[in-house]
Amino acid sequence: MQRLRVNIPKREYDICIGYGLFEKVGELIGEVFGGEKIAVVTDSNVGPLYAEKFLNQLTEKGYEVKLIEIPFGEKSKSSEMLEKLYTEMLEFKITRTDLIVALGGGVVGDLTGYAAASLLRGIPFVQVPTTLLAQVDSSVGGKVAINLKQGKNLVGAFYQPKMVIIDPNCLKTLDDRILMDGMAEVIKYGAIYDSKLFELLESIKTREELFANIEEIVYNCCDIKRQVVEDDEYDTGKRMILNFGHTFGHAIEKKYNYETYTHGEGVAAGMVMACEFGEKTGVTVSGTTERMKNILMSYDLPIAVDIEKQDIIDAVAVDKKGTGSKINLILLDEIGKVVIKKIDKNDFAKY
Amino acid sequence: MQRLRVNIPKREYDICIGYGLFEKVGELIGEVFGGEKIAVVTDSNVGPLYAEKFLNQLTEKGYEVKLIEIPFGEKSKSSEMLEKLYTEMLEFKITRTDLIVALGGGVVGDLTGYAAASLLRGIPFVQVPTTLLAQVDSSVGGKVAINLKQGKNLVGAFYQPKMVIIDPNCLKTLDDRILMDGMAEVIKYGAIYDSKLFELLESIKTREELFANIEEIVYNCCDIKRQVVEDDEYDTGKRMILNFGHTFGHAIEKKYNYETYTHGEGVAAGMVMACEFGEKTGVTVSGTTERMKNILMSYDLPIAVDIEKQDIIDAVAVDKKGTGSKINLILLDEIGKVVIKKIDKNDFAKY
Repeated sequence: MQRLRVNIPKREYDICIGYGLFEKVGELIGEVFGGEKIAVVTDSNVGPLYAEKFLNQLTEKGYEVKLIEIPFGEKSKSSEMLEKLYTEMLEFKITRTDLIVALGGGVVGDLTGYAAASLLRGIPFVQVPTTLLAQVDSSVGGKVAINLKQGKNLVGAFYQPKMVIIDPNCLKTLDDRILMDGMAEVIKYGAIYDSKLFELLESIKTREELFANIEEIVYNCCDIKRQVVEDDEYDTGKRMILNFGHTFGHAIEKKYNYETYTHGEGVAAGMVMACEFGEKTGVTVSGTTERMKNILMSYDLPIAVDIEKQDIIDAVAVDKKGTGSKINLILLDEIGKVVIKKIDKNDFAKY
Repeated sequence: MQRLRVNIPKREYDICIGYGLFEKVGELIGEVFGGEKIAVVTDSNVGPLYAEKFLNQLTEKGYEVKLIEIPFGEKSKSSEMLEKLYTEMLEFKITRTDLIVALGGGVVGDLTGYAAASLLRGIPFVQVPTTLLAQVDSSVGGKVAINLKQGKNLVGAFYQPKMVIIDPNCLKTLDDRILMDGMAEVIKYGAIYDSKLFELLESIKTREELFANIEEIVYNCCDIKRQVVEDDEYDTGKRMILNFGHTFGHAIEKKYNYETYTHGEGVAAGMVMACEFGEKTGVTVSGTTERMKNILMSYDLPIAVDIEKQDIIDAVAVDKKGTGSKINLILLDEIGKVVIKKIDKNDFAKY
């Protein structure tokens, strides 16, 4: 097991990463929680696989445990499901000195984290991400949220967990498309921050090779996110580099009603667009787009999708990262080196 | 005008207190906000009195302004009204670099503050409290919340405003009962922290005398709250002293469905109960209950209400401040000196 300490003053926590950690979840939670009650939230896909194992370990440690299962899928990241969590937790008579555990992918983590952040003005919580995307991205850094009918992640909080427990073994049950959804974010980390990681990813040819390296890969991604989040917990500056490819990616996801493309697929095509824009404007070393396309194709990720320029321009205009008439575009100098460019919205529209 | 600086690291802000400050609200907001859009939230009682004056000043300063009016009363502190605020603010295309202003009493401040805390994971906001209770208590310290059907303030956040603007002139339009609702909290500050303030309050005989001293009184209360909040932003320790009389008060409010007694009236009778309990257990100097009863009567506040002991015990058991089987009771050593006593729930039930 490897540990990464996230040093946010007064809200420090460990990310624990290791094959087989799900067998030690009672022990690990015992390190950060000495209270009485634990509410475990999971979804209808993950629950049948791991809930029993978790509950047994927690009851053995003497905790009073309640399992709350929500339907699988993005639709559960809603205010209705949030109310359901509030209701079930209040029936359980949870207090601020109890604990909430999010066991699942990004939807479970984001929804449960936001319930934990807001119920009684904050109940401690632990993230146990079970998809690659959640392990390298959404479970680390404290961003939690629900969707509104007007858009994704519009209501939320910055709320750090007490611990993140990552067992890469659980990725082995993911189907290829969900795994590659996460690989897009992994490739992003290499592209913005770590050329060695990018090269390792370029060298991997099979699912077996990937799983032989996955603990190290997840560790590296979490370590990059840790550094960025420590610098900018509230997402007012440096943290936006994590959004490389995302503004374009969000436009793609939205255009196709969040149905045709996964988040990672949107980001993949978005990263190609960001590389192309960077090369066209002389920011990015020439040849970067080609390298990006090659690596994405080797992980079965899309390098282009059918979308109008106007959809991109509209998405850029309403991005949460926007400030007035300027937008911040996240581009690459070269693989491994990110740069933030402040551009006027009108100038962007001209390209 | 007097200023109090609340020194919470990275979230410092000023409480500005002065007769006539509502004429300078554009100027004051200009000190902390250089963005484009301002959403002003108010209620159907306060709106007709001050909204036009506010909007004129803000538009004169060049801001794009939207007024959102909610129905007056506690019922508005709901998840339905929260959704309404989200919807209207998203239609206004508000961003994280815009501003939200809460103009009204505690309901407007708590609801609007929670909308500001959660929409887009946090939009800056300014509190302009218009009741005495909001001026000395709810607008300062960053506690924001909504009610659920299961209880009051069950969902919320700790979210500090960018500024609090207090004009004691606006208290002159309050009817006596609403004014005295706030006076209960004022008396509480004297009782727990400031014997001189308590003595001043004992000496005041008429509404005229009260208004001649009100700026100073509000200043003193905010200054006490400032000190407590600086020590304990997240309400994990010292801040609970502000709850003197409140656990009992909440039981009274709840027992009567939040209809018969105002918050301040519940707290008033609750403070008498806390004094009595303190004297009975040898914690509180004898004679304190008598002094407490006298001052409350002089402000037309109740010193006793009809409630079963079991209702009190039940309320104590579910208090947010509780930790497992222990409860923290806030008692007085003497007037001006508070003390926290950790008591077993079962021992409490025996008295």
